[in-house]
Order: sequence, then C-alpha cells, then structure tokens
Amino acid sequence: MTDATPETSNSVALKQKLHEVIFGTDTPAGKRFDIALIYLIVFSVLALMLDSVSWLSKPWSGYIFALEWIFTLIFTVEYCIRIYCLPKPFRYIFSFYGLVDFVSILPSYVSLLVPGANYLLVVRLLRVLRIFRILKLVRYLSEANILMRAIMQSRRKVFVFFMSVLVLSTIFGSLMYIVEGPVHGFSSIPKSIYWTIVTITTVGYGDITPQTALGQVIASAAMLTGYSILAVPTGIFTAELAQEMQRTRTHITCGRCAKAGHELDASFCRNCGHPLEIKGI
Amino acid sequence: MTDATPETSNSVALKQKLHEVIFGTDTPAGKRFDIALIYLIVFSVLALMLDSVSWLSKPWSGYIFALEWIFTLIFTVEYCIRIYCLPKPFRYIFSFYGLVDFVSILPSYVSLLVPGANYLLVVRLLRVLRIFRILKLVRYLSEANILMRAIMQSRRKVFVFFMSVLVLSTIFGSLMYIVEGPVHGFSSIPKSIYWTIVTITTVGYGDITPQTALGQVIASAAMLTGYSILAVPTGIFTAELAQEMQRTRTHITCGRCAKAGHELDASFCRNCGHPLEIKGI
Amino acid sequence: MTDATPETSNSVALKQKLHEVIFGTDTPAGKRFDIALIYLIVFSVLALMLDSVSWLSKPWSGYIFALEWIFTLIFTVEYCIRIYCLPKPFRYIFSFYGLVDFVSILPSYVSLLVPGANYLLVVRLLRVLRIFRILKLVRYLSEANILMRAIMQSRRKVFVFFMSVLVLSTIFGSLMYIVEGPVHGFSSIPKSIYWTIVTITTVGYGDITPQTALGQVIASAAMLTGYSILAVPTGIFTAELAQEMQRTRTHITCGRCAKAGHELDASFCRNCGHPLEIKGI
Amino acid sequence: MTDATPETSNSVALKQKLHEVIFGTDTPAGKRFDIALIYLIVFSVLALMLDSVSWLSKPWSGYIFALEWIFTLIFTVEYCIRIYCLPKPFRYIFSFYGLVDFVSILPSYVSLLVPGANYLLVVRLLRVLRIFRILKLVRYLSEANILMRAIMQSRRKVFVFFMSVLVLSTIFGSLMYIVEGPVHGFSSIPKSIYWTIVTITTVGYGDITPQTALGQVIASAAMLTGYSILAVPTGIFTAELAQEMQRTRTHITCGRCAKAGHELDASFCRNCGHPLEIKGI
Repeated sequence: MTDATPETSNSVALKQKLHEVIFGTDTPAGKRFDIALIYLIVFSVLALMLDSVSWLSKPWSGYIFALEWIFTLIFTVEYCIRIYCLPKPFRYIFSFYGLVDFVSILPSYVSLLVPGANYLLVVRLLRVLRIFRILKLVRYLSEANILMRAIMQSRRKVFVFFMSVLVLSTIFGSLMYIVEGPVHGFSSIPKSIYWTIVTITTVGYGDITPQTALGQVIASAAMLTGYSILAVPTGIFTAELAQEMQRTRTHITCGRCAKAGHELDASFCRNCGHPLEIKGI
Repeated sequence: MTDATPETSNSVALKQKLHEVIFGTDTPAGKRFDIALIYLIVFSVLALMLDSVSWLSKPWSGYIFALEWIFTLIFTVEYCIRIYCLPKPFRYIFSFYGLVDFVSILPSYVSLLVPGANYLLVVRLLRVLRIFRILKLVRYLSEANILMRAIMQSRRKVFVFFMSVLVLSTIFGSLMYIVEGPVHGFSSIPKSIYWTIVTITTVGYGDITPQTALGQVIASAAMLTGYSILAVPTGIFTAELAQEMQRTRTHITCGRCAKAGHELDASFCRNCGHPLEIKGI
Repeated sequence: MTDATPETSNSVALKQKLHEVIFGTDTPAGKRFDIALIYLIVFSVLALMLDSVSWLSKPWSGYIFALEWIFTLIFTVEYCIRIYCLPKPFRYIFSFYGLVDFVSILPSYVSLLVPGANYLLVVRLLRVLRIFRILKLVRYLSEANILMRAIMQSRRKVFVFFMSVLVLSTIFGSLMYIVEGPVHGFSSIPKSIYWTIVTITTVGYGDITPQTALGQVIASAAMLTGYSILAVPTGIFTAELAQEMQRTRTHITCGRCAKAGHELDASFCRNCGHPLEIKGI
Repeated sequence: MTDATPETSNSVALKQKLHEVIFGTDTPAGKRFDIALIYLIVFSVLALMLDSVSWLSKPWSGYIFALEWIFTLIFTVEYCIRIYCLPKPFRYIFSFYGLVDFVSILPSYVSLLVPGANYLLVVRLLRVLRIFRILKLVRYLSEANILMRAIMQSRRKVFVFFMSVLVLSTIFGSLMYIVEGPVHGFSSIPKSIYWTIVTITTVGYGDITPQTALGQVIASAAMLTGYSILAVPTGIFTAELAQEMQRTRTHITCGRCAKAGHELDASFCRNCGHPLEIKGI
C-alpha cells in the first residue's frame, strides 16, 4: 500500500489519472473525454453512412478512405489505453462494452488481410458491424436507468409474450400456407410466418396479400389478434414503470414517524409535519 | 387401499411412477421428461416447416418422410401412456390438452387412409393441424399464469370492445362499398369489411385503397378511429394487470381461512373477518 | 290514478304489458323479445351483405328481395308498437335510438318511391344506412357502461388530442406537398393531408410514398411523431379507466366503521372485521 | 403612476382596452375577439388548401388571390396592434407565438418582392409556412395544459427512448443494406434507415421490402422490436399522466403557503409543514 518503487508509483499514478479520465464521468477531464468520444463515434458512423451513398462516395472516395482509417486508429489507441489503465483488464475485455469496443475496430483491419473482389461484400458486412460503436452512447444517459430497470423487471413476462406471438405466428402462417398456397405468394411455411409477423405487428407491407375469401377471413382474425395483443407488452411495461417510479418516491422516509412514500418535491412529512432530509436520489 | 393383489399393486406402482414422470414437474425425472418433450415438439414443427420449402424438401423428401413418422410414433406412444397411467383417463381425453394431443397425431394416420393425388391438399391441411402440438409449450411457462388471469379478468370488457370494432367495421365497410364501389376494388360489402379491418387495425396492406376524395375522407376517419380505439384494449389490460400484480405481490395470508392477496392496509381478512397478523413486507 | 273507464283501463294494461316486453329487460318475456330482436337485426344485416356479393345475389335475387321486405315489415311493426305503448312517444321518436330505428326502416320505402336505374346507387346508399340497426346491439351490453363512462370522462382530452393530430397533419401534409409535389403523387394539399393521416396513424398503404431524400426525412419525422403520440390517447384512457374501476370498488362501504374502497369479492371489512352487506352494483 | 399628461393617459387607456380585448380571455369582448380570430385562421388555411387543388383553383384563381391578400392584411393589422398595445413588445416579438404570428404573414409579402416564374415553387413553400397560423389554435384550449405538463415531465425519458430508436434504426438499416443490397431497393444506408423507421413504427408502406430469406428474418426481428418498444413511450406517458391527474384532482390547499396538490392522506403541508384542514372531497 505504501512502499512502492518510484517507477511503479509513477506508473500507478499515470494509470489512475488515465482511468479517471477514460472511465470516470465526475471530473471535468472525464466529462470532456466522454463528450469528445461521443462526437467521434457519431462522425465515424456518419462517414460510413455517406460512403454507402454512391453519388456522394465516388468523387470523395479518397477522403472517406482516409477518414475511415483516422477513426480506426483513434479508436484502436483508445482501446489500448483502456486495457493498459485497468487493474483487471480481462474483466473489461470480456465485458459487453469491451467486446463492442473490440468488434468496432476489428472490421477495418480484417479488410486489409482479406483482399480480393469477391470477398468485398463480406468485408463490408464486417465493416458495418462497427456501427455497434454507437451502442456506447447508451452508457452516457443516466435517465435510461429507470427505463432499463422497468424493462429488466418485466423481461420474464415479455419472454412469455414473445413465445405466444411466435406460436400464434406459426399457427396462422401454416393455416395461410394451406388456404392461400404458393400461387398467391405464400410459397412456404417460413414465408407465411414472415407474412404473419408483418400482419400481427400491424406493419402490413402488402408485398404478399390474401386473395381468397377464406384467406381474408383468417387474415382479419390475425390482424384483430395482433391489434389486441399489442395491449399486452404495453400493459406489462406500464405497470412495471409505474411501480418503479413509485419505488423511487418511496426512498424518502420521515425521520420522526418513519412514514415513507413522500413525493419528490416534499420538504415536510405529510403525516407528522416534521422537516424531511432530502438526499440525492 | 391396503389388500391389493401383487399384480394390481405392481401395476398401480408403475402407473404412479409413470404419472409422476409424465404429469409431474417436481421430480428430476419429471423435469427431464418435460424438457425432452419440448425439444421433440419444436423439432417436429421445424421438420414440417422445412418440408414446405420446395428447394429443401425435394432432395431430402425420403428423410423428411421418415422423420415425420418417427415423430408421429413417439407422440402416439406418449399419448397412450398418458391415457394408461391416469386413474380417470376420460377427463384427460376430453380436456383441452387431451384434445390437442390427439389432434396433433391424427393427420399423419389420416394421410394413410386417404391416398390419391387430388386429396393431397386436404391431407396437407390435416397434417398442418399437427402444428397445434406447439400449443403444449404454453403449459411449461409458469409466468404465463399472471398474464392469463389478467386476460381472463378483462375478457368481458374485451368482448364488448370486439363487438364495437365489428359494428364499426360493418358501418365503415358498407359506406366505402357505396362511395368507392367495385371499380376501385371494393367489390362487395364483405370485401369492404376486410378492407376496413385492414385499415382500423393500422395494418394497411395497400392492395385496396380509396381513389375518390370522399372515400379518402371516410378512410381517414376510419384510420383515426382505429388509431384511437387501440387505446381501449390497452387501457383495459393495463388496469387489470396492475391490479393482478398488486394482488399477487401482497403475500399476507389469513391465519384461519388461508385466503391470500389482501390489500396492504388490511387489518382483517376480507373473506372470513379473522384479524390478520402483519409481518414486515 | 283510480277511476279510469274500462276501455282506457284495458288499453293502459295492454300498453303497460307491451312496454314491459319491448322496453323492459327484467322479465323473461322482455329478455326473450330482446334476444329475438338481436337475431333479427344480425340476420337482416347478413342478408344485405350477401346481396352485395354478385355471384351470390344473382341466382338468389328473388329470395333476397323477399327477405329484405319481410325484415322491413317486422321492423316497421316493431317501430309502431314502440310509439304506441309509450306515454310520451315524442321523447322516444327524437331520441338517438328512436332516430336510428326510424332511419333503419326508411331506405326500403324510399326505394319504392324513387324508381329508375340511374338512381339505384343512391338508393343502395340509403339501404345500407339500415346497417345502423346493428347499433342497437350496444344497448344490450351492460359491461359497455364502465367503458363508456371512462370514454366520456376523457372526451375533452381526446378532443384536444384530435385537434393536435389534425394540426400536425395539416403542417406535415403541406410540407410534403411542397417537397414532393404532384409528380410523386402528392397532387394537392388535401391529398397530402390524407397521406399524412395514413402515415401518422401507422396504417401506411403505400399508394403514395415519398421519393426524394428530403421527403423521406420528413416522412420519417411524421412516422416517429405518429408512433409516439399514439401513447397520448392510450395514456388518457388507461388513467381514466383505472380511476373508473377504483370508483366502482369504492361503492362498498363498511356499516360499522364507514371504511370504503373494499374489493368486489370482500365479505368482511378489512379495517374492523365487520361483515359487509353486498348490494348489486 | 399618477401625474400623467392627458394624451398619455388616453393612450394608456386605449392600450389597456386593446390589451384586454386581444390578450385577455375573461371579458366578453376578449372572448369574441378570440373566437373571431380562430374562424379567420381556419378559413385562411382552408383557402390555401383549396388553392392547391388544380381543378378548383383554376376557375377561381382571382377570388382566391383576393381572399389571400384580405387575410394577410387582417393578420398584419392584428400583428401591429399586438405590438402597439404591449408595454414590453420585444418580449412578445421574440416569444414562440410572436414568431409564429410574424412567420404567418411574411410569405405573402416575400412573394411580392421575389417575382418570376422559376421562383414560384420556392414562394409557394414560403406561403405554406403561413399554415403555422393554425398553431395559434392550441393557445385557446385550456385542457391542453394537463397533457402538456405530462409530456414535459416525461420529456427526458422520451428523449432516451428516441435515441434508442435511432440507434436501433441505424443498426437494423446497416444490416439490411448489407444483406439485401441495392438490387432489392436498399440503395444506401440512409435509405435503409428510412426503411427501418417505416418498419419499426409499423407504418409499412411496402415500397421497399426484403426479398431474401435472411432479410425477411432480420425484418421480422425489426418488426417485433418496433411492436414491443411501442410499449415504452405509452408506459412513460401513462404513468406520468396518472400522476399529473391525481395531483390536479387533489384540491387540498395549505392554509399558510397556499400550496395545492397534496396527497389524499396528507395531514401536514409537504411544502411548509403547516397542518392541513381536510374538507370533504
């Protein structure tokens, strides 16, 4: 704890400083680093998007290529520093964000090793994966936590709901495959299931539509089902969120009568009139 | 209870053992049986699906045919054992799951009795009914119960809602039939009602669309109606689910009548009037 | 009240008897009359629907014509008896259901007075109005009352919401008219508003779609707006319904401690343990 | 405050009178002015709409042109009086409604200064901006305030939600660009993102649809995601609105600090700790 050699001590101090800037969000330097990183991520994703627009990318292909590599190098350096300054780097490397950070720099390097015209498409697929970089943005929004907790609370009910939707889609899809058949576009059961999901979620592209009277009756039943069961995830999430918001309120407890559940803007206990001590929630 | 012949006693013991494994979910053997059954159901449904994809089923038709019969035989044996090991088999046979189990093995046998090329389509319809096998999956999800109870509680309100949607669809459909007429695709009142359901549920395929100005005004009214009344089933279900969750959460149980689900501020059982002992919740 | 002439007394007795059967729903005769009426309404609407399906109506046109007149005569007699047996017939005639009853028999008679091939379409429009007969069905569903009261409570908020949607549609529609213009199907501001309603309500027929990049950006904004403000009517209705359901509960009050708000299945007061007298709610 | 010259006093009286009529809504004159203004706004917008319908605007172009200028002059006079009668005109000019009032009269005058056939389309764009006039209508609806407050309360959560939708759209859009590619209509990442928004919001035009099996699987995942996360804004708004309605409903006001909106079981003011007198609610 105390008797470290000067070099180690220096290295530890540097590591701590870097850790504070890169992982911390409380110091001004840490905040500035985070905001700069967000801008870099958004700009690199925008560059990738514009690259895909052919009339834009052709005259500017050289610049976009350079930009692409500048972003890749910056993110590579950032990734290395993150590993360097952590006491337990492996926990970070195999964490969700660690993997996202790694996957978001990998495709550019892979595109160097795998040349050749016929592999280009696959390389592009890998390059686009770098878009997961944007996922890092979620980390910076504290408000997301209440929503996340409500979603976590309702994840088992939502799983049951998704299973039901898949079972319903399979049944409706198979029925439509039999009733309408390949001549009306329902060329296989998986494609009919795709049609059912398009219908139940009320998306309704209209690329495949029922032509027979019986098919239209079954389709109507599928639509009304989809329209009604939309109430289920909404109901689940609303009930959980209302509870989560109430729980946040309940943390304020009166020091005299121990009454809990005061509103967030209350200064005095509504039960005994004692002043409330508000702590940062 | 006591003086049974050895054979009967053996048979009873076997029946009990089988009953435990097949219907029970508490013992390790019962759990393993249930999980194996789930895998079998899912694989048999997947085989059926792939069979419908023509470029997959042609080169593998022999294997798929064999697989089909293996699954049918396994489910037939399972169905017979279920009947054998129950003390009152008829209650099972005519229960919902009993009928589903029966219907999911029937089509394969019917396809043997009804040969001939021109009957093939009908046989396929019967075969697809086996997909109801997947319904059994629902049985294994305990979380589904809270959702089911909330749906049950709101079933009368949902019925009123569905009646209203059907009445609205009939009125809007008839109006559109008159205003747009057969030349714009609204070829009969039932077809116009199909269009109205497509519109009110916000699916909107676009296979039939209003062409006249008046038709577009009525269609807009139908859309806004559908968009707004979507709030009705969601509201019903959310309110019921919030109540159901609160009731489940309250673990206060009456000491005399064992009635659970009392409200948080209750001092006496609402069922028998016995004082409730409140423990820290 | 007492000294009425025998004829008048007889007439009054008959009127009361008829009133009981036709307007009442408590006596067995009243219930049977209501159920018979519902069947008649549904069958007359079904006959009208089938009449519009050309391959069905051609070979059976004579039967459908006869059926049509039988239903009209039955509903005419019913309408006359309703007027006859009421002490204040004018209040009924100008009430909502009185007008619906009248409008649902009118078109058939008008079709007699207005002959000629070129008027047929207009007559059909009037005939279809008879479908409003089905609206009477709503009267028979007591469960609809809680829903109706919640809708009534939220009608002012819903009006504000609808105004906002219309204003939004006007703004987005005008913008799209300018950006996309008549060449891409946005041929006038009213038509662009129709497109906006199709988009905001998430129906999305696809008969008119944005083709320019700017148009697609504005369309995306309209979609996300529509997708989000769907939360508004749902939120309004859910909050009102939850309140309405709680209010229904609150009607049960303890006879000893006057504690209100007991659950619907409670037999004893949860506050003092006194038995609750349940009255029909 | 007292010794003003007669002229100034007259001017002040006129200003006060005008202020009462134009900005006030309590006096009969103020109400009549507001209602007249609403009618004028609606009629001017309707005139603009009809102008865009070619078969209507051609024979009536002279009348519509005159009407257009009459409305512009009326709104110009109104705008000048508003500035004249206010003690601090600059606060109004740079307020939201001040800017809307200004922008809604500007385009007509700009169309005088910018003549020429090739600029007509741009001028029409400016003219259509006058449609923002209709935004003034919102001011007259007091019921909108509760909704507005609930929306304001949930604006941070809604922002997080919108960020998530945009991130999801970017990821799904890029995946679809790779999987389907330009040959199936996914000609660039921005266009694929447009398609993803059309899909996630369940609009589903069907102008671009996935053709490959993998594309349809990803599209199904996008639909189910969109269908489920619709629950998120609904849940947020419903929970906030329920809270806002409860707060508004509680008419208990503190006798010392006049703080309203106490919870129903409060005995002391949550703002100043003064005991609350509970009257029958």
